[in-house]
Amino acid sequence: MQKTLQEIASAIGAELKGEPQLIITAVSPLDKAEKNHISFINQAKYASHAHSSQASALIVTPEIAEGLEGNLLVMKDPYLGFAKVSQLFDSTPRPQPGIHPSAVVAEGVKLGDNVSIGANVVIAEGVVIKSGSMLEAGVYIGENCLIGENTRVYPNTVLYHGVTLGRDCIIHANVVIGSDGFGYANEKGQWVKIPQVGGVNIGDEVEIGAHTAIDRGAMADTEIGRGVKLDNHIHVAHNVKIGDYTAIAGCTAIAGSAVIGKHCTIAGRVSILGHLSICDNAHITATTFVNKSITKPGAYSSGTTYQDNKSWQKSAIRFRQLDDMWRKMKQIEKEMLQMKQNRDNDNE
Amino acid sequence: MQKTLQEIASAIGAELKGEPQLIITAVSPLDKAEKNHISFINQAKYASHAHSSQASALIVTPEIAEGLEGNLLVMKDPYLGFAKVSQLFDSTPRPQPGIHPSAVVAEGVKLGDNVSIGANVVIAEGVVIKSGSMLEAGVYIGENCLIGENTRVYPNTVLYHGVTLGRDCIIHANVVIGSDGFGYANEKGQWVKIPQVGGVNIGDEVEIGAHTAIDRGAMADTEIGRGVKLDNHIHVAHNVKIGDYTAIAGCTAIAGSAVIGKHCTIAGRVSILGHLSICDNAHITATTFVNKSITKPGAYSSGTTYQDNKSWQKSAIRFRQLDDMWRKMKQIEKEMLQMKQNRDNDNE
Amino acid sequence: MQKTLQEIASAIGAELKGEPQLIITAVSPLDKAEKNHISFINQAKYASHAHSSQASALIVTPEIAEGLEGNLLVMKDPYLGFAKVSQLFDSTPRPQPGIHPSAVVAEGVKLGDNVSIGANVVIAEGVVIKSGSMLEAGVYIGENCLIGENTRVYPNTVLYHGVTLGRDCIIHANVVIGSDGFGYANEKGQWVKIPQVGGVNIGDEVEIGAHTAIDRGAMADTEIGRGVKLDNHIHVAHNVKIGDYTAIAGCTAIAGSAVIGKHCTIAGRVSILGHLSICDNAHITATTFVNKSITKPGAYSSGTTYQDNKSWQKSAIRFRQLDDMWRKMKQIEKEMLQMKQNRDNDNE
Repeated sequence: MQKTLQEIASAIGAELKGEPQLIITAVSPLDKAEKNHISFINQAKYASHAHSSQASALIVTPEIAEGLEGNLLVMKDPYLGFAKVSQLFDSTPRPQPGIHPSAVVAEGVKLGDNVSIGANVVIAEGVVIKSGSMLEAGVYIGENCLIGENTRVYPNTVLYHGVTLGRDCIIHANVVIGSDGFGYANEKGQWVKIPQVGGVNIGDEVEIGAHTAIDRGAMADTEIGRGVKLDNHIHVAHNVKIGDYTAIAGCTAIAGSAVIGKHCTIAGRVSILGHLSICDNAHITATTFVNKSITKPGAYSSGTTYQDNKSWQKSAIRFRQLDDMWRKMKQIEKEMLQMKQNRDNDNE
Repeated sequence: MQKTLQEIASAIGAELKGEPQLIITAVSPLDKAEKNHISFINQAKYASHAHSSQASALIVTPEIAEGLEGNLLVMKDPYLGFAKVSQLFDSTPRPQPGIHPSAVVAEGVKLGDNVSIGANVVIAEGVVIKSGSMLEAGVYIGENCLIGENTRVYPNTVLYHGVTLGRDCIIHANVVIGSDGFGYANEKGQWVKIPQVGGVNIGDEVEIGAHTAIDRGAMADTEIGRGVKLDNHIHVAHNVKIGDYTAIAGCTAIAGSAVIGKHCTIAGRVSILGHLSICDNAHITATTFVNKSITKPGAYSSGTTYQDNKSWQKSAIRFRQLDDMWRKMKQIEKEMLQMKQNRDNDNE
Repeated sequence: MQKTLQEIASAIGAELKGEPQLIITAVSPLDKAEKNHISFINQAKYASHAHSSQASALIVTPEIAEGLEGNLLVMKDPYLGFAKVSQLFDSTPRPQPGIHPSAVVAEGVKLGDNVSIGANVVIAEGVVIKSGSMLEAGVYIGENCLIGENTRVYPNTVLYHGVTLGRDCIIHANVVIGSDGFGYANEKGQWVKIPQVGGVNIGDEVEIGAHTAIDRGAMADTEIGRGVKLDNHIHVAHNVKIGDYTAIAGCTAIAGSAVIGKHCTIAGRVSILGHLSICDNAHITATTFVNKSITKPGAYSSGTTYQDNKSWQKSAIRFRQLDDMWRKMKQIEKEMLQMKQNRDNDNE
């Protein structure tokens, strides 16, 4: 694969300084770039690394460009430029259209043009797969699912019945969508299952990481908005709603009926209780426990950070005594005030 | 599907007030119910919502019933009634009995009546599947497993050899049961694997959520009691025992040889250390770290709750200094006592 | 299966005291051992249990051996002896060599001698599988993967393209290796995917637990060293490096580009931020949050430990006020100093 620097500049919307016909064959990190590779520098503090790099061209900010010579693509956000040029050189293999003879496709399933159905895929009745979509080996699609255009589902992922996927989605391997939510009543100590008969609606341009599970709704649907990005090992319980363009990192868990706003970033290993809401543009750092609603945009955190094991053991004990500490301090404050007053009285 | 109100009243054990022959076609949430739907009200504070609902009948407590007219099913626990009526109207598709031609069933496998073996299922030697059980597409059942009556295993789940499942279990998609426990000795810095040759015994009426893994025992078996409900992404390590009717929410992790009692409720993202025990009727809230045995029924918790990121950064620093704070406070207390005594001496 | 005590002594490197020709038929825990079983005692405090055990032979330390009679295998680390004798008696079934007729193997795939390819396995183009390796039912191997000698991959595991597995690895069921890392740039609130075109390199003798996912690198490779042991449900993000012989317990999450040293032990549910490093021989306890690099060998911890729910609610509130407490205490300290000085002045 090769592109001229001019072609790349046009594709990523950057201003070209240098040789338009320069041939670029790959995008690489600054320190590993070879001749005819393109790289990027996002922050002024790394500008000096440009001189030691073998890259033939660099994507840089206008500020960084001022101090550099050579072939430059200048734009406000070089990281965005890097993302776009990476898409130009994307080498990820794509399945060919066609239906593998080992696939088991129920009668009446509607397949669009140029779909790819891999080996051992199983598609149940009533399913609609739109044009250009790819179901890789071992995928299972339950009854009455709808899969939009150009959506790719990686091997061994399972969609239960009644799941809707938008167009241009990427669903990674071993994902489960539409599994039963965790709902029971209790009768004399035994659990009585509440059948989970809602569905799951997933918007366009959603990416879902390996081992993520999205439960179906109890009665209404679980809903994932447009452009949402979910990393690996995420737990999305029944009737959760996630707003458009929110991104959630690995191992985050979201309990039932939580409503998460648009354009949020939620880091890894966050725990979100059920039946609460998080407003648009909330940013939650790793390991945070969200135990009640967040109503104002901003950054939120909880958790403790590491220390050596022996010191931690003491911290952990004192944590359990925190309210005692607080009361003791209040008592000291009071006594001190008393002593001051006594002294004032003495001195009068 | 439709039922008369009288039929529903009998099925859920409620007292009927209103029209016995009223036709009910679905169960719905109060705010989404339509004509001929049934809904429920559990708490007096929601009683006023009854008037704005389109539901044709309501399941309510005796107290709520007093203030309402119309078609009512009256019982102490309307949520239990809702669970039972939901089962009556359950629309979850069920696989048909029969063996799909693509299934690979070893010679000598014993299949009961009316079992359903889906596409691409693989069953190894020595397996026994009892009547009415359903193995969906892509399921793998290892050597010598035993699956009880009417148990349903969703697609792509894997049972290693020597796993016993009770009757009426529901095992969701991409579950793993019987994987090796994490056991090694160390020889000069290298890990020497301890083969995991115990099994896994799972009782009747157990439900296991998507992506949950239950490791086989090292020598003895891992044991899950009757009526246990496990949500998604749960980690059950080797030789864990979970008592009857305990329910555990998503992403909880239980380390090796932990013994959990009966009728416990363990919320999501709980971490339980190995080689400890939790008594019956313990209730553990989300994100709790159980680092030693729990010997008295009750509710237990740990963890920290979110604040704005800047305040949290200070809290996290102070947490590491908690023992210093404690000592400093003790010192202040002592000095204050000294000052009081000094003053008393001065005043004598 | 049976071995003489002499054979076992030689195999595990222990000194034999007792009857060399004694027949041993199994290895068992001390309290469940029967006649002709071997067991072990690691710690002096359990030595008294020897008398009530039915085991015909025991692996013990020299110190414990002094107080015991009967058939003993004496070595410094009886737990290591137990691991090795367990390997002698390992009853885990192993797949037979051969290619199941339902397997879908692309043209040109190179298979070594005695490989075992299970039912419904799918192998894409360009793959090399070396001698003695076993791919169990439903496994998917993407384009250009390389699998070393005697490596076993349990059912329904997925390897994306370009993944290298060493020799003698054990990869458990429903694992995903080579899924896309979580990388996006942001353009006016929408996420622009950065194609993940690096690979994954996994060394020899690595074991990977059920449901663990290892993402491929963004540009360079994700790297897992020799002899690394990963438990279940572990999240390894793009470009992470894990050093040789490090062991990591279940549910630990490692964010992108973190570099972990050799011979570390990382317990369960640990959260490790990205772009940091952990030195060799670091030991991290369960639930710890590693928010910055660890540069000195030792044991590290964070987190809080459980208390009754009501007390915890107070602790959690006070945690958010910790900096206020700190400031208040500083203020008290200052005032106390002032009072002392005042008193000294009064007394002059």
